[in-house]
Amino acid sequence: MSTASFIAGDWGTSNLRLFLCNTEGVALDSTSGPGAAESHGRFANVLNSLAAGWQERHGPLKAVLCGMVGSTIGWVEAPYLPCPAKPDQLADACKSLEGGRVHIVPGLSCRNRFNAPDVMRGEETQILGALELTEALAQGRHLLCLPGTHTKWAAVDDGLIQEFFSAPTGEVFAVLNEHSVLVRNHGGAHDRSDSAAFREGLAGFNGFPQGQLLHRLFECRARQLAGEFTAPAAEAYLSGLLIASDTYGALRIMEGSITAKPITLIGSPELTQRYASALSLNGCESHQVDGSAAALAGLAQIHRRIAEGSHS
Amino acid sequence: MSTASFIAGDWGTSNLRLFLCNTEGVALDSTSGPGAAESHGRFANVLNSLAAGWQERHGPLKAVLCGMVGSTIGWVEAPYLPCPAKPDQLADACKSLEGGRVHIVPGLSCRNRFNAPDVMRGEETQILGALELTEALAQGRHLLCLPGTHTKWAAVDDGLIQEFFSAPTGEVFAVLNEHSVLVRNHGGAHDRSDSAAFREGLAGFNGFPQGQLLHRLFECRARQLAGEFTAPAAEAYLSGLLIASDTYGALRIMEGSITAKPITLIGSPELTQRYASALSLNGCESHQVDGSAAALAGLAQIHRRIAEGSHS
Repeated sequence: MSTASFIAGDWGTSNLRLFLCNTEGVALDSTSGPGAAESHGRFANVLNSLAAGWQERHGPLKAVLCGMVGSTIGWVEAPYLPCPAKPDQLADACKSLEGGRVHIVPGLSCRNRFNAPDVMRGEETQILGALELTEALAQGRHLLCLPGTHTKWAAVDDGLIQEFFSAPTGEVFAVLNEHSVLVRNHGGAHDRSDSAAFREGLAGFNGFPQGQLLHRLFECRARQLAGEFTAPAAEAYLSGLLIASDTYGALRIMEGSITAKPITLIGSPELTQRYASALSLNGCESHQVDGSAAALAGLAQIHRRIAEGSHS
Repeated sequence: MSTASFIAGDWGTSNLRLFLCNTEGVALDSTSGPGAAESHGRFANVLNSLAAGWQERHGPLKAVLCGMVGSTIGWVEAPYLPCPAKPDQLADACKSLEGGRVHIVPGLSCRNRFNAPDVMRGEETQILGALELTEALAQGRHLLCLPGTHTKWAAVDDGLIQEFFSAPTGEVFAVLNEHSVLVRNHGGAHDRSDSAAFREGLAGFNGFPQGQLLHRLFECRARQLAGEFTAPAAEAYLSGLLIASDTYGALRIMEGSITAKPITLIGSPELTQRYASALSLNGCESHQVDGSAAALAGLAQIHRRIAEGSHS
């Protein structure tokens, strides 16, 4: 068994995932805790109590943390690094805390294709990791998609994070599913496993893509009233419509400016598979990278660079 | 003062508006009460107690009611009338209750342009009224829009309601505004009065209409984080994006199949004005009809026809 080297943490708004890692970023152990929203004023306590056992066995360990822990609701604000950004700039811009024992990764900002401000926090570390895990990304102009609550589409040019834009696809899905009359699956399990209805949603949107998302959404309700959909089928159809709309719109935005293939999807396997299906319907190949693996690889890279920097 | 002739009621899911009317459908008095969702099992009681004073002064009066009172959550189910439907079929298809004293107007159903089932309940009565209030609608193929929680776009051909489709634009606005992190105006007044941000939302959507609604929605949040938007501005921008998307999409769906101008907007003046702005940006003139006036005119017309039928 390899030696524990540092603690890697993905500290989002609602969840903290903490890993005990060796130098290569391989997780030797893991645990989870409260998100940034619930850790206000006691970030150090949360980290120390979760990592107490690891520190007892392995001595003092540095921690590298990414995500909302570096936001205004976090432990300390690590200001956004503007794009275009080189991956190694992320390590240099980390905020150091607790006498250099804790490092917080900054997010990224840019003016997107709509000339609007855009931000990410946490995804930059996954991109960093994906660049390391996927050799083909090092050269050329690639499109990366990180689906989630706020899906990010990022253009990477010879390893430089050039620009990105966001779509709150996961959040729109969640609030419509839970709070609208469109699905009526309230209180039930979030079952999006009706793959036929999901694919119908993908294909349905793609048939009429010119701004007709809203007009297809009503089908979730009307087809339940007509007995054509169960509530889980309506939920899957809603997911298909939204993912198709996100994908179709993103491909139009980036049309002509991405030369390399395939498109890289980074996230939970269940979600990247859904986006892979949507991309496939648009004639695009894709390559899936597990989001947790990407985050770990990114945090390990940042840790290595910080360790090198402190020795130089 | 003209003589009271009947009671007209627009009984929606969450609200009942009741009018004492003369034969022409002019409201002599009005009151309001609980919606269909809260009136379960006691519709007769609600109606009788609200109308007790009117009946005392004017003797027994017939009531004509439209809206969700005729749905599965209503007093009695008045099955949907399939399109194409002639306005006078609505009177013939009313469900009679309480020994012929109460008449419930049916909704309409159709297979829409996406070959999906679609339904309306309440709007059919407003369309009926708008056809009466707006002489120009009697001939030719017109597009009508009834904005609201579930916006309806209907095609009327020589006075026949030919087809329609729905967009849950108002509901998407409400759930995103109340339950997402996009606006953060939670608990505050629903102030959509920032007309500059609203118009920016309209124009913003129209600049990139090919399935990019989701990608613009994130600006509501990012521009607040960047200090470009207050929460009310983000709310107004959200409203602009959604109404522009609804309008643009609907015009594409109906492209080439509507010959008559202008487009008729039926609803609350505040909302129809917003849609008029969106239509104007697409080069479409519009004509606004007050939704309450349209409902009253429609209910009066149905009452007249029922009265004529009972004497023939």
